[in-house]
Formats: sequence, structure tokens, C-alpha cells
Amino acid sequence: MPEAIDLITAKRDGRRLDEAGIRWLIESYARGGVPDEQVSALLMAIFFRGLAPPELRAWTAAMVASGDRLDLSGVPWPTVDKHSTGGVGDKVSLILAPLVASCGAAVPQLSGRGLGHTGGTLDKLESIPGWRAALPPEEMLAVLRQVGCVICAAGPGLAPADRRLYALRDVTGTVESIPLIASSIMSKKIAEGTSALVLDVKVGSGAFMREADAARELATTMVSLGAEHGVRTTALLTAMDVPLGRAVGNAVEVEESVATLSGAGPADLTEVTLALATEMLTLAGVAADPAAALADGRALAKYREMIAAQGGDPDAPLPQATVTRTWTAAADGWLTGLDARAVGVAAWRLGAGRSRKEDPVDPAAGIICLAKPGDRVERGQPLLELRSSDESRLPAAVDTLAGAVTIGPGPAAPAPLVLERIGA
Amino acid sequence: MPEAIDLITAKRDGRRLDEAGIRWLIESYARGGVPDEQVSALLMAIFFRGLAPPELRAWTAAMVASGDRLDLSGVPWPTVDKHSTGGVGDKVSLILAPLVASCGAAVPQLSGRGLGHTGGTLDKLESIPGWRAALPPEEMLAVLRQVGCVICAAGPGLAPADRRLYALRDVTGTVESIPLIASSIMSKKIAEGTSALVLDVKVGSGAFMREADAARELATTMVSLGAEHGVRTTALLTAMDVPLGRAVGNAVEVEESVATLSGAGPADLTEVTLALATEMLTLAGVAADPAAALADGRALAKYREMIAAQGGDPDAPLPQATVTRTWTAAADGWLTGLDARAVGVAAWRLGAGRSRKEDPVDPAAGIICLAKPGDRVERGQPLLELRSSDESRLPAAVDTLAGAVTIGPGPAAPAPLVLERIGA
Repeated sequence: MPEAIDLITAKRDGRRLDEAGIRWLIESYARGGVPDEQVSALLMAIFFRGLAPPELRAWTAAMVASGDRLDLSGVPWPTVDKHSTGGVGDKVSLILAPLVASCGAAVPQLSGRGLGHTGGTLDKLESIPGWRAALPPEEMLAVLRQVGCVICAAGPGLAPADRRLYALRDVTGTVESIPLIASSIMSKKIAEGTSALVLDVKVGSGAFMREADAARELATTMVSLGAEHGVRTTALLTAMDVPLGRAVGNAVEVEESVATLSGAGPADLTEVTLALATEMLTLAGVAADPAAALADGRALAKYREMIAAQGGDPDAPLPQATVTRTWTAAADGWLTGLDARAVGVAAWRLGAGRSRKEDPVDPAAGIICLAKPGDRVERGQPLLELRSSDESRLPAAVDTLAGAVTIGPGPAAPAPLVLERIGA
Repeated sequence: MPEAIDLITAKRDGRRLDEAGIRWLIESYARGGVPDEQVSALLMAIFFRGLAPPELRAWTAAMVASGDRLDLSGVPWPTVDKHSTGGVGDKVSLILAPLVASCGAAVPQLSGRGLGHTGGTLDKLESIPGWRAALPPEEMLAVLRQVGCVICAAGPGLAPADRRLYALRDVTGTVESIPLIASSIMSKKIAEGTSALVLDVKVGSGAFMREADAARELATTMVSLGAEHGVRTTALLTAMDVPLGRAVGNAVEVEESVATLSGAGPADLTEVTLALATEMLTLAGVAADPAAALADGRALAKYREMIAAQGGDPDAPLPQATVTRTWTAAADGWLTGLDARAVGVAAWRLGAGRSRKEDPVDPAAGIICLAKPGDRVERGQPLLELRSSDESRLPAAVDTLAGAVTIGPGPAAPAPLVLERIGA
């Protein structure tokens, strides 16, 4: 039987871990047989030394094997999922799942909650009265079979080793490691049972990966892991220097998603959503035009069906903020920059996000971007509308926005949204 | 108040930790305020990134400040201690403390137990019936004032943060870091209250540091730390490719120490001991000839006085092994190598050392080197005598010795024992 200390020193000294050792470690950790302090030392050694492809494959396989793997073979459509590495105003999942389902592929979307400056899909949908994120596996499958899409929380039975590891990484400075990020994301998606997967790897100030090189490496790593585990996987690198769409928060993002499903969404959000939908439908082998599904109301109808299937009332009024403040332009000119991270942090401080996992979120809090880069602006014109349910949260949010807005004498060249495609 | 996660990510990313953060961390860890998994991640980051001199000074000072610092001002002689990084057959402390005391400097030696293939001074002395390693601080001071030297265990009040950190490093693969080794050793010696300190940094197969470069870096780091904390410190780099002296074990090393104190010890052991004694007396400002103190019986008398003051009977018979086996020369020729590590591991397996901290040691177990490099040997001639109290331990010890002995057609050039001196 391997000893944890031997795995730690091997990785520390740049030696390769073998499959049996990795499997033993992950299994033992999942059932409490190896203490946190040994695993955190190993994780930090991995931060510095990385994991070679065979190590990463074994690591991910062991995380999948630590729990159940869902069987989606009873779903009467090809299955395809999407995962985003997270961005500011990134409500794409809310639109994409019903959109793709309305085109004839099934989307079994297990999502997460927000932590830090990027929001979480489940937090957003929970602004809808009655909507439930926690579905037991059999109910998740029933909704998927009935509606063709479902967005819910991953149950405790899926990749439980990843659950423990993620909590440990969070407090030990070992989140920012490409192999550890890749194995964490992919183990959950593989366990979820989807046949195909499209990754939206965000790049820019508001993203986890600020540089294209790192984003590309993460995307390539995940695409390979998917292929190795029988999940057809591709990735798009998409820009995240500016919030996606105009709404950043929870209820406000639901409202914007509904508008986009009706074909009346912001151009950038619609473009990214359609690019991802096209990629998903291609992987699923379904010939369909997602733009048509937005235009003719099929996507919106599917969304309403999905919300209702999970207990939500798609017609119920959403929570509204009780305090608002506007941020105005300091000069005449053209809006050339709107820093995604600053807007995300400000929305978080308004109550849209949480500092600790156990904190609640304020569904009404958030920011509306009244102008976006490329727009002509005049001094004094409102650029951002800050919303909250708690007036005492405004000052910290306002402070965060200092320097977030750039106004220039002329329009900046429009930046591409879809930067790169990484295929298997 | 700093957060542990910020210190971890700063060190991980190569940024400098400030003094306040380091002090907070060590203090909090010593009283259980920061969990092991965060500290082990930080230790692994330090393994990769190191500690810059100001960080290391603050780290060491915080470890000293986590407990008591002994006040040796009431001792009527200048105080000087020695620390060895550990080697095979390294019984120098047993000889050196009374030798230097007999020359007019006081030696307050806080020692440790063996773990792994190098022995521990306290384990060796505990082969003497009645001798006690655990002295409360006031009794330690009383023996030091009365005899001029004392060898005992460091009490729990000295550098308690180091005690916790060391136990954590031991299971997390973070022992082998020069700044962590240096701060661990020096925090205890600084807290002990000695005015001067000589470090015996061993280099070679049987030592913790196998390469002179690493040993020199460790020595230089510790010499600087001593100076920064008001302890005059120098270091000798000494060879540890071959066991020091002929005896490796516990009782057998006590016997050889007594012979050396009587002026009849092996040449290599005597040479290293006298070099360290000279260094200590110089640092203490005492003009005396330690070789004369060995020759005229003063050192031996002081040893007997020290043993008796700690409850030991210097005339009591020592534990004897019940099983012995000899290892013989496979060819005629000259003994050119006798691998210190292999001999150390073999002695350990015979029972002289422990695998886990809580294991007992066999005082009678060990190895006698009947020949040393430079000796002419004949095929079939006994080279090593293995001793134990447990016959079942012999096979593993014998296995360990495969390849440990090298016999050549002519004598190898004698290797120097004292390789380098590193002064303040």
C-alpha cells in the first residue's frame, strides 16, 4: 500500500506518480483515510510541478470513480452539456440549455453557486419564486426526459472526492493550478453522464484566466480529458474583459436571459450564446439553426417548461431592489473600457455574491450597464445603475468602481468575442 | 489581521512575507489558531520558493518567541553549545560536552532522539542505567552550574511552535528545506540561552546533506541566524561518508565515547571531536588545550560527574546483545569504502533506531566496524559485527549491507575529515 508521504515527496521532487498511487490517494482521501495536511502539501507540490497527462488522466478517473456516474442512456435525444469557467454577467447557461433542447439535443446541466466576483447559475435561477436547484438524481432524469433540459445542483454522490478536494484547495492557495482545475471540472461532467461537452473558457480581466495562453492550456487539457473518458469535448475561448450583456446580478440576469430567449437580448450575449449552441448541436449531431429557435419563440417556451418542471413560476414577478444609485460619465467621449472584474466585485459587494459558502445572496442586488464600450457618452450621463436591498452596501461597491470606466476621445476598435476554438 | 490564505498565495507566487504576517502565523499556529492543512501548504510553498533572509529572521524569532528563553546568566563560565546535523556513529556530543566543560566553558546541551538511520544522543545515554534525559529547566540549570555541562531533552516550553511545525513537516514532505531546517535548529539553540554555538554540518552519504554545496548553504544560513539573534556561531563541515569511529548503536557508542574520553578513541572520532572542541573554546574565549584534557583524565572525570548528576551510574555494566553475526570480506585487498548510510540503516534495523517516534530502541543493538577504509583486509576476515537482542532482525540488516563494503586492489587516498570552516 502506498504511503501519502511517498507520493508527496515524489511529486515535490518532480517524479511521476503512478496510477495505483493516485487511485489509492483519491479513494483514501474521499473516505477520510488521508489527512488534509498531507493532501494540501501534495496539492501545493502539484501547483509547482504540474501533472503529466497520464497522471492527470488517473487523477480525474479516480475522482469520477469516487462516486456514481449517471446513466443517461434512457434519454431519447443525444446529450450535450456546456461548462463555463465563469465570468461577469455570464448568464449563458440559462439561455443555452432551453435553446439547445428546443433544437433537439438534451442538456443535463449540473451547475454551481457563485463564490467571489463571478455569479453562479443556481443563485440566478433561485430568484424565481418556487424554483428548486436540488433535485435527486431520479427527479433530474425525469425532468431531462420530459423537457429535454434541466439545470440543477450536482448531488453529493457525484465525484465526492472533488467536493472534498475543492474545499481544501479553497483554503490552501491551491485553486490556481491548471491540472487541478481541469480535473475538478471534468470529473463532475464525466460523472454527470453527458455524451458531449462544450467548454466556454473565459479570458480577460473578469475571468479566472486573464491570459489567452493559460486559457488555451486549460482548454486543451480539458478537451483531452474529455476524449480520454469518452466524452466528445470541444472548447471556445471567449472574451471576458467587459461584462457579458448589460445585467450583472441574479434576478436582473434572469430578466436579461428571458429577453435574449425572446430574440431581444444584447448583441454580445446573443452572439456568444449562439456560437456555443452551434458548437453543442454540432457535437450532438443535430442539424438545426439556433438563431431561428430564438426568433420563433421555441427557445423561450422550452425555458418556461424547464422552470415550471422544477417548481418555478415563470410569470411570477422577480425580487426588486429597494435602493439604487447611478454612476455617471465623468467626461464627454466614447466608452472605451468597462472593467469586468471591477463590475463583478461591485455587484458582489452590493449583495449579489457571497463571501463564504454559507452566506445567502441578495436576489435583487446587481448592476445594470446602461452603456457598453463602443457607445458615445456625455458627461453626467448615467453609465451604471447599482441596485441593492441594503443601502449600507453602496459605498464599498462605489469604491470598487473607481477606475473601472474608461472614456476616450474616439471609439475603440470592437474586440472579437469568440477568440478561438479548440477541438479534439 | 492577516489571513493564512494570503500568506500562502503570497509565498506561492514568490512575494515576500512581512514580519507581522510571519509573527502572526507562527503565534497562531503554536496555539492552534491556524489549521495544519494551511500551514502544510505554506511549508510546501516555502520548500519551492525559499525564505529570504529577513523572512527567515522573522520566522526564527517568532519560533523563539513562541516559548521561553532560558537565562544562563547565573552560570559562572562562558556558555557554548554544539549542534550536529546528524551522522552515523556520531557520538561526538557525549565526549565534547564534558571535554569542553573540563577546559573551563559551560555546555548546555539540549539534544534529541534518533529517527531514521542517524542515532540520537539521548537514546545513546539512556543505555546507562539510571540516567535521566528529562530534566525540568531548574534542574538542568542546577546540573550546568554544578558540573559545567548537561545533556538533556529540550522541555516543552522551548520553541513550542517548532515542535508542532516539525511534527507537521515530518508527515508532509517538507523536512528537506534549508530555511526550515535552519530555523528549526536555531530556534531551539537560541531559546536554550547559549552565548555561543558551533555547528557540525555533516556532508556525505550518511548525512542529511549529501552534497557540500547544500551543507555550506545550510551552515551559512544558520551562522547568520545565530549572529542576528546574539549567539556567536560558527560551523564546521565534516565528512560523513563513512561511520565516525567504529561503533554504531547506543550502548556501543557510549563505550566508545568513554574510550575516547580516556584518550584511547579511534583517530577519526578524536580528530573531529578535538576540532569542534577547539572551535567551541575559541568562541567561548577560553584558552585551553582539549587534547591535554583527554590525555590527563580531566575530560573523563567530568563525564562521570555529568552522568552521575543526571542519575546515571558510570560504572554500571551496559546492556549487551544476545545475538551477533559477522560480515566478512569477500576478497583480499584494501578496504576502500564503508557506506555510512547502509551501516546506519542496518544498525537501525537491528533495533538501534526507531521507525515511529513512539517506538522504543534496543540499547544493545548496533554494529561494530572491525575494519575501516585504509585497512588491508583478507578474504573471509570479519569486517562488521552485527549485534541485536532479537534474532529476527538480522536478515533485514544483512540485506541492507549488500554493496556497503568496497574492497580495492590498493589503498584509497585518505579523505579529509574537516572539510571547511564557516565563520560569522
